[in-house]
Amino acid sequence: MISVLLIGKGNVGSHLYKAFLNADGIAVTQISSRKLEVIPQADVTIIAVSDDAIAEISSKIKNDFVVHTSGSVSMNDLKNDSKKGVFYMLQTFSKDKKVDFSEVPFCLEAENINDYKTLEIVAKSIGKKTYPISSEQRNTLHVAAVFVNNFTNHLYKIGNDICKENNVPFEILQSLIKETASKIETLSPEKAQTGPAIRNDEKTIKNHLNLLDKNQQKIYKIFTKSIQNGN
Amino acid sequence: MISVLLIGKGNVGSHLYKAFLNADGIAVTQISSRKLEVIPQADVTIIAVSDDAIAEISSKIKNDFVVHTSGSVSMNDLKNDSKKGVFYMLQTFSKDKKVDFSEVPFCLEAENINDYKTLEIVAKSIGKKTYPISSEQRNTLHVAAVFVNNFTNHLYKIGNDICKENNVPFEILQSLIKETASKIETLSPEKAQTGPAIRNDEKTIKNHLNLLDKNQQKIYKIFTKSIQNGN
Repeated sequence: MISVLLIGKGNVGSHLYKAFLNADGIAVTQISSRKLEVIPQADVTIIAVSDDAIAEISSKIKNDFVVHTSGSVSMNDLKNDSKKGVFYMLQTFSKDKKVDFSEVPFCLEAENINDYKTLEIVAKSIGKKTYPISSEQRNTLHVAAVFVNNFTNHLYKIGNDICKENNVPFEILQSLIKETASKIETLSPEKAQTGPAIRNDEKTIKNHLNLLDKNQQKIYKIFTKSIQNGN
Repeated sequence: MISVLLIGKGNVGSHLYKAFLNADGIAVTQISSRKLEVIPQADVTIIAVSDDAIAEISSKIKNDFVVHTSGSVSMNDLKNDSKKGVFYMLQTFSKDKKVDFSEVPFCLEAENINDYKTLEIVAKSIGKKTYPISSEQRNTLHVAAVFVNNFTNHLYKIGNDICKENNVPFEILQSLIKETASKIETLSPEKAQTGPAIRNDEKTIKNHLNLLDKNQQKIYKIFTKSIQNGN
């Protein structure tokens, strides 16, 4: 049995707590990050709070092994005197939406192999996919995630805006959006690229630019050039 | 029984032919666009060829009702003397991948309501979702699709490049990519927006820019600004 203490009652903390309650071999306790007067002992202490609060909160913990759940904070930003690690789940957590942990990649880091193995057992008690990821690699993943998640969502917004302006239901694009996302499971994004930019179809590109506002034109042009340059 | 003649043996033509063969109430014939000496009679003639060839091929057809399958060619670019229409499926068709027509939106256009109804019956014999879409609206959809499909795929490529350069498996991002695509089924893209840009997290943005090459930086900056401006 591994005892897990969860500090933090936000999105990540709450979803993790629910999952650990149903996990075999895990005894979980959860406390708020605002009530750190009495901190229960635990084999693994998981700090699930905002990036800025990690250093301060970790400095108050005397437990043996302390990890955080952030994508962009280094392992060494933990300020506990004991052992350190990272338990980062690369996924968007929404308050009201159930998380399917079997689909979530757990990016794990620890100072030694035994601690890593402990984190692996903890992760596999609720999920399936674990990866050894250093703080540097995690930084990389985080910026890549900004492109494929944040920026992709902004492209969806622009698509939605274009549809709204012209009284076309955005839902028509939903099936294409899902197909685009699942296509790259079997094909590299480079090989999956289609459209007027890669075909060098100048007539269509010109026609499209005429339909767009200034900001949309700017983005259209920069992508067309980037695709054509093989960037 | 509605007789359908398919002209064209490319991706779209081949997938449609297979589907119509199994459809109730449809009698389908397929010919190559290169063999137009003898054109069989049919209630609906579907031209599934490249955009540039549509005008010329349609000019050779004497059948009663002729439609094309293009997203960016106007209905009136058909040059047959009889009735005209459009049978556009907003989806990416790959040669080797089976198409689930029940998920494909059929964007239909015709000169009169009876012809529209005929197209609707033909579409529903193989699919589920049909929409009346004018040539102008189709143009709109096509440019919106470039954003949510072509440009999104290019963001996936950049994410892949960043991972490759830093020896991180791109598959870690796959689950997030799918989640991003399905999130907007229940939430508007505007409300689904997360990340350092919308949070105005300057420290993370600066850190990210340091990890990127020049072209990636350019795209990162333009998106950050566009998200922050509410574009």
